[in-house]
Amino acid sequence: MPTKLAILLSGGMDSTTCLWWIRHHQSAEIHTISINYHQRHHIELQHAAHLSKLAAAHTHKVIDLDLSSSGGNPLTDTQLAVPSAAEKQQIRTVVPFRNMLFVTLAAAYAETQNIQDLYIAPVKDDYEAYRDCRRAFYDNLQQSLQLGATYDRPFNLHTPFVDKWKTEVVALGIDLNVPYAQTHTCYQGKRPACGQCDACAERIGAFKANGVADPLEYEIDISWPA
Amino acid sequence: MPTKLAILLSGGMDSTTCLWWIRHHQSAEIHTISINYHQRHHIELQHAAHLSKLAAAHTHKVIDLDLSSSGGNPLTDTQLAVPSAAEKQQIRTVVPFRNMLFVTLAAAYAETQNIQDLYIAPVKDDYEAYRDCRRAFYDNLQQSLQLGATYDRPFNLHTPFVDKWKTEVVALGIDLNVPYAQTHTCYQGKRPACGQCDACAERIGAFKANGVADPLEYEIDISWPA
Repeated sequence: MPTKLAILLSGGMDSTTCLWWIRHHQSAEIHTISINYHQRHHIELQHAAHLSKLAAAHTHKVIDLDLSSSGGNPLTDTQLAVPSAAEKQQIRTVVPFRNMLFVTLAAAYAETQNIQDLYIAPVKDDYEAYRDCRRAFYDNLQQSLQLGATYDRPFNLHTPFVDKWKTEVVALGIDLNVPYAQTHTCYQGKRPACGQCDACAERIGAFKANGVADPLEYEIDISWPA
Repeated sequence: MPTKLAILLSGGMDSTTCLWWIRHHQSAEIHTISINYHQRHHIELQHAAHLSKLAAAHTHKVIDLDLSSSGGNPLTDTQLAVPSAAEKQQIRTVVPFRNMLFVTLAAAYAETQNIQDLYIAPVKDDYEAYRDCRRAFYDNLQQSLQLGATYDRPFNLHTPFVDKWKTEVVALGIDLNVPYAQTHTCYQGKRPACGQCDACAERIGAFKANGVADPLEYEIDISWPA
């Protein structure tokens, strides 16, 4: 068992559930890492900071990554509209190699802190639009990180939820008392949340599938027939 | 043969020789990419821009990457001294996962430009201090990039000089008429160059081994007995 570990915490549902899951299963010192990639929904960084405190994380590190010079995308470019879930355009919200850059930056920071275990929380629903959410990718990336590290020693990339649907992750989180009202999901960065972007639609669906009310406020009525 | 290709051009000797080598061997449209990682020797970016023009590159793209938040290092932190070659402390100039971040950012940009071939110019001398300069690492990284890309298609990472010593690269560059006076090497960012940091020492050694005068100006006398 590692004595120190790090987790990439966006402040969203999946990574926050992962943080609570780690607290439940590990006794290691927990370090949370968030990436400020100048996302339109940068409000999630405040939530990540707050959630790190609630989880009694040892440190919360924010790493800056300006993606504006390497590729345009509605999640970072405020001139472009975020597509609604109804438009079925999730591919348009792909930031090329976003997770690979996040993991590599987090691994660089982890190296300076003598941390050899990094958690990230892709879920099964992410597969279709995001190829960098599959375990085959992370297995390979873990090897790249081991081969490219300054020193020859193990580095472990953990994806405990990669084979779980978001619905299952929420079920787990409800059991673990994850403070979901404190998480942030909406790609538009709205609070109350827009309820219409892909991220909101997936979240609403996951709570509905569990028959549990989402404690978050929305701009629109998300109630459903009992 | 690709119709478009990209090369990571630092403005130093190795990547500039690689650029001239590509011009000689390929008819593809060449796109140069430099990374502004807030390096102390950021003057190399001006040289990269100038060299791109001299090489008639189609475009020269500068991607910003602030490494200050992910790990301290004398190459980016002006509060730390650059070790001299005599100190044998090259390991201290390692920026964790620097090349992996550079390649991934360049690949992200390449994806937006529909470029599937990326060149980078590590040389054999870099092996000892920099594990991310070995072909095993790049083979694996190429696979991570293929697995993590937005679309399932080939992506080729070329390292034509990975099995050549810097001395051999300079020999090749002399044949190709590389304008070495326009390249930048000194880690201290000095022009005339300091002649004492690891980078200068390696450069001076490579020219001496070829029995050719380095066209660059130095602060110190680098002449040697004929």
